[in-house]
Parts: sequence; structure tokens; C-alpha cells
Amino acid sequence: MKTLADIARAAGVSTPTVSKVLNGRADVAASTRERVEGILREQGYRRRATQPVALLDLVFHELTSAWAMEIIRGAEQVAHDEGLNLLVSKSGGREGGELSWLETIMAHRPAGVLLVVADLTSAEYAQLTARGIPFVVIDPAGELDHDVPSVGATNWQGGLAATRHLLELGHRRIGMVAGPDRLLCSRARVDGYRSALESAGVTYDPALVRGGEFNQETGYKVGLELLRSRQRPTAVFAGNDLQALGLYEAAREAGLRIPEDLSVVGFDDMVLARWAGPPLTTIRQPLTEMAAAAARIVVDLARGKEPTATRIELATSLVERSSTAPPPGA
Amino acid sequence: MKTLADIARAAGVSTPTVSKVLNGRADVAASTRERVEGILREQGYRRRATQPVALLDLVFHELTSAWAMEIIRGAEQVAHDEGLNLLVSKSGGREGGELSWLETIMAHRPAGVLLVVADLTSAEYAQLTARGIPFVVIDPAGELDHDVPSVGATNWQGGLAATRHLLELGHRRIGMVAGPDRLLCSRARVDGYRSALESAGVTYDPALVRGGEFNQETGYKVGLELLRSRQRPTAVFAGNDLQALGLYEAAREAGLRIPEDLSVVGFDDMVLARWAGPPLTTIRQPLTEMAAAAARIVVDLARGKEPTATRIELATSLVERSSTAPPPGA
Repeated sequence: MKTLADIARAAGVSTPTVSKVLNGRADVAASTRERVEGILREQGYRRRATQPVALLDLVFHELTSAWAMEIIRGAEQVAHDEGLNLLVSKSGGREGGELSWLETIMAHRPAGVLLVVADLTSAEYAQLTARGIPFVVIDPAGELDHDVPSVGATNWQGGLAATRHLLELGHRRIGMVAGPDRLLCSRARVDGYRSALESAGVTYDPALVRGGEFNQETGYKVGLELLRSRQRPTAVFAGNDLQALGLYEAAREAGLRIPEDLSVVGFDDMVLARWAGPPLTTIRQPLTEMAAAAARIVVDLARGKEPTATRIELATSLVERSSTAPPPGA
Repeated sequence: MKTLADIARAAGVSTPTVSKVLNGRADVAASTRERVEGILREQGYRRRATQPVALLDLVFHELTSAWAMEIIRGAEQVAHDEGLNLLVSKSGGREGGELSWLETIMAHRPAGVLLVVADLTSAEYAQLTARGIPFVVIDPAGELDHDVPSVGATNWQGGLAATRHLLELGHRRIGMVAGPDRLLCSRARVDGYRSALESAGVTYDPALVRGGEFNQETGYKVGLELLRSRQRPTAVFAGNDLQALGLYEAAREAGLRIPEDLSVVGFDDMVLARWAGPPLTTIRQPLTEMAAAAARIVVDLARGKEPTATRIELATSLVERSSTAPPPGA
């Protein structure tokens, strides 16, 4: 293989210019770069990475909904600003016998890792820590050890605000479509709902709370059960917007109009909430901001800076649209 | 700094074991790994990447909707299967004066690049080619040079099928919400619509076709114009599902029921289509499969294998749900 000096001679440029091209520097004229690269290729020259690429891993349990997209957007913005490259992968649903998600990540040595709605086993935690790879959990699935950095949303307050809104409209028989019990955010929303009822002197009725996954199918199925029960609720708080959409379909099937016959509140404020029929009143969860905050913490940790806080919850807020109204006959 | 042999001695393991830990190999017991890594850290030992990380870039013009998520899912699956790490970034909407998306990508030297709904300038094309970085365009925005590999969907056939479905139900006055003219996929859908009308002997009326962006706002705004026009259409083909949702809201505002007063067909078959109220009849575009096909082509190219085809369109298909019916009075 020819030396850099040979390449330089053939291209009619200096050796440092060849070196710049090899190193991907931007301060080389495009025409020069192309000429040099043409010769490099002719010579079968393959560059090696001269410095490690700075990577930020964003790991989802599942790559599913628009929900994940809002998190990607926030993480990508910070990665871009900080000169990091954002790797997106999923940890769940792989065949057995493959490398674990953690082994895959450790093999490429990122500057940091963002984990979404994940549980981290103590062993995984120890491995990341032993490698000195900083990580932050976004919207933690379960209880975390007290020293694991995390960014969540005020789920309990959100559940409280959703239910208060319905109480203030005059509803007393308020149902809830809950998310899975294994997720901390889901349990917090249910507790906020219960707490709002109790503060208002409304007895909590476990028959009105039915759970499942955070998807439309659950909203539909649980919605039909609630709406066909003998004393059906006049309002339902859905644990997330997807469940609310399923609930919309259950209401259509049961011949109930929203909001005239049934009020519905969701949770998340995904783009689809604004365009549901009718537009959905919901609790906004600032997913993009949460991801950006988590990315900033991980970048600080990677650079040895002390982040201002390593355990934060961003505020949720009620967004009133057209799916809620006073109960029938009120 | 201590040698590997020193580290090995301190950890009570062999030098090859230390080397394995440094290289991120999986065949080291977790407890051994932790002990060795603890000592490496104490010694301020920082591993360098011993081999370049294999990267696959997925570049969107914008990171917006659930649409992008389906593409990420397909690309991630293939990247995972092929031992590549998926980088996600966006090319649009950056401040001036920053590195261009292409410079950013070339600086980390990926095995390949997937570009989504992008236009590639001749200069960008030449730069990628000169560097020997294979790339594939997913859902190309505009005309591509004949040797640029791409994966799209049969947009024209989709427009044809959507419009034929409405014609077969008996509609004659069929409107269309078009996407932006600058996008090839949008123009193909309009042409398919027009062609179906003409084959059925229905005169194409330009007043019934109004365009804008591929979002809900356009569907809503254009929908109101169409539905308030003197001779309003009995059916509308929306250029994508988001526009169809905006059209749903316009219909609600105009007091028209779907499908009794107005039939609507969308395009894409995003998850939201199934859960719209009523569930949306639409043209399925296999986004996840398109991304996976594109990723496989780029992997073949990166490995010097000749892909079976470098310019493909995957089939679209009509998915009938509840938003279409015969016209009123039919």
C-alpha cells in the first residue's frame, strides 16, 4: 500500500491535506477532498477511526408508539448540541442466546446510556457502574436504588388533576382505566385518582377501576366493561391517551356520545389527543423535555461534572379540550 | 500507568483475561469482570476502542410523527440482526454555521446510511460516493439519479386503489387533500387518483383537489374548504392518515357524519387509523418493511455484496374499515 506522501503526490496536494481528508476534517475544499478520496479508494485505502466516536445510547424496552418518538426527539436535540451520536435500540423481545442489550452496549462503549421505562437489575446496575458508563433512567418502570439517576413526570399530581377536573364538572361516578401495576407511573396515576376522590368526599369504588396494558385494546375492552356495568360511570379517566382512544371506540359501540353522555380524560398529550374526535382533554406529560433533561444529566456525568440534580420529575399539566363536560342531567 | 500484567496480578487473573475485559468480550465471569474493571478504574485506565464500532445511520429530514417510528423499528431490527448500531439523526431544521448533516455523518464513518424523504444534492451524492459509504434513500422526496438506490412504496397504485374503492361505492364527486408538490410520493398519489377517475369516465375537477403539508392542520383547513364549497364532494381521499384526521375534525365542525354523509380514505395505515372515530379506511404503506428492505440493501453494499435489487417499491394495499360507505341517497 502506498504511503500518505505517495497519495499526496498523486493528488497534487500536501501530505497534511491527505491527513485532513483521512480524519474527516471539514477545512478541505470539496473538489480537493474528492480528488484525494478518489485516489485513496483506488489504492484500496481504508481509513481507521482515529478517535472513538462519541455515542449516546437510548434504549427502549419496546420501539412502539408515537410516545417513543417524542423521547427520541428530545434526546436527539441534546446529542446534536453536545456533539454526540444517538444510538437507538430496544432491550426487549429479543431471542434467547443473543448478547444481552447490556453486553451489546458495553461492546461499543458509549459516553452514556438513557434507559426508557426499564427495570435495571442490580447486576446490570453494577456492570454499568463498574465500567464507569453513566446512565439515566427515563420514566422509571419500578423502584430504583436511591443512587440511580432518573427523570420522570409528576404522575401522581397528574392523576389528581385529571380526577379533580372531572369532580369540578360535577361528576361523582368516575371510572378509571388503569395501566399495568408493574409500572410505577401507572400506580402513581391510580393513587392520584383515588386521592382526589377521597379529598372530595367521594368513596373510592374498586369496581370502577380496571386495568390492563397502556394501549387502545385495553381502553376498548375495559371501556366496554365499565360502560355496560349496571351503574355505569359518567366519566372515565384513562391512564394514557391510547387507552382513551380505545375508550372512545367503546363509547361509540355503546351508543354514548362524548362528552354529552360520557366525559373522558387521557394522559400524555400525544399529538393524536388534539386530533381525536372530539379533541381529548388530557394530562400533558413533557416527554421531549424529559428526554432532553435526562440526556443533559448523562452528558454532565460523562464529563465528570456534577449535575444540578440527578433525580427529577417534570410537571404534568391539565390540557382542557372537548371530551369533558358536566354529567348528563347536571 | 501499570501494565496489563500488573493489573492481572492485582486482580489474581491471567493477562489474557484482562485483555478480554478490555475488549468487552462476553466470555468472562461477571464477578471477574467486575474485579478487573474495578482495578482498571483505580489505575485510571481508560480503554480505547480496539475496533471501529459498526454504525448504520438513519437520517430523517424531521423527527416528527409516529410515521418515523415505524421506519426506526424496521431499521433497528435489521441493524440488530447484522450486528450494527443504529444512529438516528435529523438533517433539517439546524442552525446555520453548524456542520452539515453529511459532514457529521462522514466524521463517524458509518458502514452505511439510510436517508428518509430526503433530497440528495449532486454534491452530497458525490461526497458519499467518494468516501465509499453506501446509502439508500427511503421514500425518496424527489427524482433521484438513476444509480441511487432507493426503497419506496407503490404510491400511484395506492392513489388508484383508494379512488377506485370510492368509485365502486358509487361516489362520483370525490375530492382530494393532496400533499406537497415537491414530494414525489404526493404527486404519484394525486396522479393515481386522477387516473382512476378518468378510467371510470368521471371528469377530473381541479377545484376538488387542494393541497398543503402532510399534517392534520392541512386536512382540517382544506377539508373545511371542500366541505363548504357549493357542490361539496360526497367522498374525500386524503393524501395521508394525518390529513384524514384533520378532515374528520372539519366534518364534525360542518355537522357531517362519517361515513353516512361523507366517506374518507387515508394513506399510510398508521396505528392511529385503526383507532380513529370511525376507524379509517386507508391505503397501507409498509413502512417498517420498507425500512428493513433499505437496511438490508445498505448492509449488502457495505459488505461488497451485490444486492438483488437496488431500486424497489413495496406494494400498498387497501384496508377497508368504517369510514367509507355509499354516497347519501345512493
